[in-house]
Amino acid sequence: MSREVIVSLHNAQLKRLVRLRDRRERLREGLYLIEGARELARAVAASVPIETVYSCPELHSPDARALPWAQLPVTELGRAAFEKVSGREGPDGVLGLARTLPRTLPEPPAQATVVVLDGLEKPGNVGALLRTADGAGAHATVLVGDGLDLGNPNLIRASQGSVFTHPTAALTAPEALGWLRGHGFTLLACTPQATRTYWDAPLAGRSALLLGTEHAGLSAFWREAADVEMSIPMRGAADSLNVATAGALVLYEALRQRTAASP
Amino acid sequence: MSREVIVSLHNAQLKRLVRLRDRRERLREGLYLIEGARELARAVAASVPIETVYSCPELHSPDARALPWAQLPVTELGRAAFEKVSGREGPDGVLGLARTLPRTLPEPPAQATVVVLDGLEKPGNVGALLRTADGAGAHATVLVGDGLDLGNPNLIRASQGSVFTHPTAALTAPEALGWLRGHGFTLLACTPQATRTYWDAPLAGRSALLLGTEHAGLSAFWREAADVEMSIPMRGAADSLNVATAGALVLYEALRQRTAASP
Repeated sequence: MSREVIVSLHNAQLKRLVRLRDRRERLREGLYLIEGARELARAVAASVPIETVYSCPELHSPDARALPWAQLPVTELGRAAFEKVSGREGPDGVLGLARTLPRTLPEPPAQATVVVLDGLEKPGNVGALLRTADGAGAHATVLVGDGLDLGNPNLIRASQGSVFTHPTAALTAPEALGWLRGHGFTLLACTPQATRTYWDAPLAGRSALLLGTEHAGLSAFWREAADVEMSIPMRGAADSLNVATAGALVLYEALRQRTAASP
Repeated sequence: MSREVIVSLHNAQLKRLVRLRDRRERLREGLYLIEGARELARAVAASVPIETVYSCPELHSPDARALPWAQLPVTELGRAAFEKVSGREGPDGVLGLARTLPRTLPEPPAQATVVVLDGLEKPGNVGALLRTADGAGAHATVLVGDGLDLGNPNLIRASQGSVFTHPTAALTAPEALGWLRGHGFTLLACTPQATRTYWDAPLAGRSALLLGTEHAGLSAFWREAADVEMSIPMRGAADSLNVATAGALVLYEALRQRTAASP
């Protein structure tokens, strides 16, 4: 049996992979780049349609060797070719190309926490929030604003693939608000001005946690839509927390309150 | 009045600054590099002895212009010279050189939370934890293990300068344990195996929160020393949280319990 291995750095497929590091190209082609064995395993588990997995066995980590290779459409790359298309230091020889799916929000149960991320642009923060939202058993995360696409490689990496297993959608602000209102969610804005702390805010039931950027905070649209404002106590020299940290605190407080409400 | 501006990229002071990006050089000289206006402002506020501030006014942000320049020993750099010594993309033209001070832990009040970071090596995580510990009004953070020095530029940056305002010490494990035992701290280990959640753990009073790395967890030394084990509930596909996220959750739960105990 012969096996094709791409070694030429001028190969057209490699050039396409490099182009797909650009957001506009990803959106135009409707494709995600999924690098790393852990991330690809989560995508496969979530039935994301994988078009091709570019693989360099020489670079494989134990996690990479444990992937369900027999089920995957594989194209093998030489080491230099893989390093050309990898976005990582110390790559593990796994780079998947996947079709994006329309993302819809599942019907919420009576106790459901949704996170709304308003205008966040740092893929590392959004990815970290998705990982924490998954851990805290949140119902879904909604990304509002044009700053980021869900196929951003750094977002996928920081989420450790949770972007595939945790329901996540990119919506316009009116779409997101319509869905939340239509499903009877209480909207809770995280804002440093609030006198009520998040510990005392009603986070059980159907609650939407609204988070803006560290510098600009929430936009007027969401400040006006909010039913309740809540703050995170600050007891030191700094006047704010990282947004992924703030989100983790309110997500886990919501889990604590949901757990207490239906033990 | 004439003003000296260093423009030559071969200047000896520049070469020294580049050398000081290396940890061994920092430890040998007993110096910190403090880049960024926000970070330097915190260091000045905390009376860290500043030897020189290398400044490039052309690059100054509004925060940089607002520094107390009249009180600072300044050496001016040309733009190319500053960019050579900067460790940032988009530098703000502020790079301080400061003497390290022996770090001691202040006497704890009756309600005091101390974080023990066991073997953490990622400066971004430790810096993020220091920022959160400051926000949560923790008494101090103790770094155990050889992985990191408190002068690491990425640690300083991720802490946004909280490493200067929040009491932080690098100790050996026996030193740290001796200090905690001597001051009557309860030791609480964060570990995924524990059946008791951190919500139900006794975090008021004098409590030490023990955090290990995401992959290896706590070392045997701290697992054996711990009085109580506690876990963070995981409700999704992933089996762990980022260590800075886990630390934020237990730090703010401790603040909640301290607040409830002495309102």
